[in-house]
Amino acid sequence: MQALGRHILAEVYGCKFEVLNDIKKVEDIMINAALEAGAEVREFVFHKFSPQGVSGVVVISESHLAIHTWPELGYAAVDVFTCGDKVDPWDACNYLAKHFGAEYVNATEVKRGIIEQGQEERLVVNI
Amino acid sequence: MQALGRHILAEVYGCKFEVLNDIKKVEDIMINAALEAGAEVREFVFHKFSPQGVSGVVVISESHLAIHTWPELGYAAVDVFTCGDKVDPWDACNYLAKHFGAEYVNATEVKRGIIEQGQEERLVVNI
Repeated sequence: MQALGRHILAEVYGCKFEVLNDIKKVEDIMINAALEAGAEVREFVFHKFSPQGVSGVVVISESHLAIHTWPELGYAAVDVFTCGDKVDPWDACNYLAKHFGAEYVNATEVKRGIIEQGQEERLVVNI
Repeated sequence: MQALGRHILAEVYGCKFEVLNDIKKVEDIMINAALEAGAEVREFVFHKFSPQGVSGVVVISESHLAIHTWPELGYAAVDVFTCGDKVDPWDACNYLAKHFGAEYVNATEVKRGIIEQGQEERLVVNI
């Protein structure tokens, strides 16, 4: 069995309200987390909610990073999804946890796109 | 304990190459999946890769939908992340599985942002 992607679901707790509610800071940290891991940034969109909270996504050649912040709880839900061997999603995860000033992070890696041995070759041949 | 969000990780298999490689079709299906579930679309970005594959994200008021396609494998990795009670992420997931013409889908729901009883009130008071 082979996995096409690695997807980290990170629960980031204990961050400062001011950071999680600042769209520019959140955007900078997420883009720099992608770059720090060696990813190639393709597109990004961020949105500021009223009265508080930021949502945003960075599309990278290797998949994406996403964040949703609850500044009033000091909490952010972060996803780092990468495919290929070039980028280690934990590099991005560690970078952003540090730069958000998280008190603690609960992160899990999920394998995405489990392709059984031989399936890839068969499917490619069938196209 | 209370969860702030519901996140479906869907492994979508057995789709047609032509659909998964068509950025406009992928974009339409993902945006309509969000709307079908009653979500409010805020932003979206999609990117077409060479020689094949599409990545894209729809930021909704209730969080986001994301997709990465491997047309040569008939496979797409899809995320549907919602917060609040208004939108059921499974409505979006079922819609997109149907419209991608998936042969089978392996989907799991993960709770995001587990906040312990009383933590929310304490944190709000502390701000």
